[in-house]
Amino acid sequence: MDSHYRISLDAMGGDHGLSVTVSAAIEALKQHSDISLILVGDETQINEKLRELNAQDDSRLTVHHASQTVDMDEPPALALRGKKDSSMRVAINLVKDDKADAAVSAGNTGALMATARFVLKTLPGIDRPAICSPIPSHDGHTHMLDLGANIDSSAEHLYQFAIMGDELARAIDKVDSPKVGLLNIGQEDIKGNEQVKAANRLLKEAPVNYIGYVEGDDIFSDRVDVVVCDGFVGNVALKTTEGLAKMLSNDLKAHFKRTWYTKLMALVAMPVLKALKTQFDPRNYNGASFLGLQGIVIKSHGGADSLSFANAISIARKEAKAEVPKHIRHRLQALVDEGQKQAQ
Amino acid sequence: MDSHYRISLDAMGGDHGLSVTVSAAIEALKQHSDISLILVGDETQINEKLRELNAQDDSRLTVHHASQTVDMDEPPALALRGKKDSSMRVAINLVKDDKADAAVSAGNTGALMATARFVLKTLPGIDRPAICSPIPSHDGHTHMLDLGANIDSSAEHLYQFAIMGDELARAIDKVDSPKVGLLNIGQEDIKGNEQVKAANRLLKEAPVNYIGYVEGDDIFSDRVDVVVCDGFVGNVALKTTEGLAKMLSNDLKAHFKRTWYTKLMALVAMPVLKALKTQFDPRNYNGASFLGLQGIVIKSHGGADSLSFANAISIARKEAKAEVPKHIRHRLQALVDEGQKQAQ
Repeated sequence: MDSHYRISLDAMGGDHGLSVTVSAAIEALKQHSDISLILVGDETQINEKLRELNAQDDSRLTVHHASQTVDMDEPPALALRGKKDSSMRVAINLVKDDKADAAVSAGNTGALMATARFVLKTLPGIDRPAICSPIPSHDGHTHMLDLGANIDSSAEHLYQFAIMGDELARAIDKVDSPKVGLLNIGQEDIKGNEQVKAANRLLKEAPVNYIGYVEGDDIFSDRVDVVVCDGFVGNVALKTTEGLAKMLSNDLKAHFKRTWYTKLMALVAMPVLKALKTQFDPRNYNGASFLGLQGIVIKSHGGADSLSFANAISIARKEAKAEVPKHIRHRLQALVDEGQKQAQ
Repeated sequence: MDSHYRISLDAMGGDHGLSVTVSAAIEALKQHSDISLILVGDETQINEKLRELNAQDDSRLTVHHASQTVDMDEPPALALRGKKDSSMRVAINLVKDDKADAAVSAGNTGALMATARFVLKTLPGIDRPAICSPIPSHDGHTHMLDLGANIDSSAEHLYQFAIMGDELARAIDKVDSPKVGLLNIGQEDIKGNEQVKAANRLLKEAPVNYIGYVEGDDIFSDRVDVVVCDGFVGNVALKTTEGLAKMLSNDLKAHFKRTWYTKLMALVAMPVLKALKTQFDPRNYNGASFLGLQGIVIKSHGGADSLSFANAISIARKEAKAEVPKHIRHRLQALVDEGQKQAQ
């Protein structure tokens, strides 16, 4: 029997809710013959949307009712306590109850992380899950974690991130031995804080292809496949990247719009600019993984469009196919065993 | 009498040494009638270079001999102990002995910082100097500090960085009340570590135009003029920025070079691409300030060309003109006084 992956979608989440999630679901089913999708949310609204898009009869698409919706700016604790029947929570419940192999949501990150942790629990030996996302690079992309779930990460945390990132890169990119680097600052001055130095020592003994310290500019090179860092640092680096890309793109447009002559140039140069835009289209990178949980949860950008949300579904499929949580569990177990042996 | 600013140059420092520093000095003298420059290094070589460039008779250009040169990869401690007559050290000595108002070097950052601290000492109340550099932004540039001199910065350090950055922005940009922001991560999940939260409380009471938390993407917006952060975070953000800009620029070139048709497009679009390049030309941002010292030291990029190094000289002039160290001293003294009052 061929494998088949069941993915639950928080149909109400994100800035655009159903108008994005339902059409993305239809698109994802076209792309992948080996998935089925469960749309979680207001049954009436979802069915109406499915009829509108002529997709009410697709056997691989089921609807699971949930009466509540988590707001995009709702405090995580409030969502956790007050919205037990939210589309977000129910989508994750389906993973816990083994009715889905992965859940995808464009809902608010804090609430999603809090709910995912509460419902699925972390893997043995994991204190807090990490957020990992692909960042476009010269030769494809680099997986970076943590991107903001953890601050003041200890050496042990950074070690766990490396194992998790390694497993994710194998699952997503089908590479045998991803190059794992530890983010640090220039070799002049000071070579990193105590946590980074200690993590460096741990990683030298780790069962990953550890290439040592990398710096901020290496993220975009082909030197490294997985960049490990504390969540504060990773979040700043990610947002800095997004901010610079946006500014350069806007300013390029502004320069081309300045006079009728430059507008003409823009028309001529359009194919090249489009090629560059396609190469770095953030929609093709949408889908951050919450790693370290006893189940797969993928966070889509809140403002994602259908193409973008469909990409997050593809990532969920890849992780389900590769059984990422199971592999992380096995590899961390080895670390725990090692620790117990040493403690005896 | 008109003011006049004396700037000592580490003529031997940087990847290109004399071939850049001497021509940059000549260029800077043309740009600014109110400066004189002291070229520090091997007398014979410098004089030869000056003759080559027909500049041996410029009365605003003097040569100060130094018999040693600090290598670009020399460990700071080694440079400090073993190279007491290096061009770097002597250039800084001239500031200490009040024979220069500022020093500029393209030499290695670690050795320059160690030497500057040792020779000039920090201002009262400053534990470690910070590195501050302008980062190109949508409406000009944003001053960011610390960029790597300090790790695990405490709330008090971040507070001091804010005062120093504020003073620098006033000096460089002639703005009355620079907008100062504290770098933090997204408002979802966790709102920063303990140091950042404590610094936020201190800055709300600080004598600066504090606008609160900013995120990585704000660096490039017009929301903020001075971004304060720990040196580890700042260094990663800076290098990430440099890496992304380099990748985008390379890939844009590659796209334009692909076929004879795209090459033709590149010719047509050239003026616009050049305008964008000029706007973000890193050479116009060269010159990082070592703030918190009892004297002005400017670090140029090691690979700087003449235009770039001349820009670092211009920054030294601006800081000398604005008497940045004196102003920082006064404003920090107020903080110390306040602390003593509270302790009594």
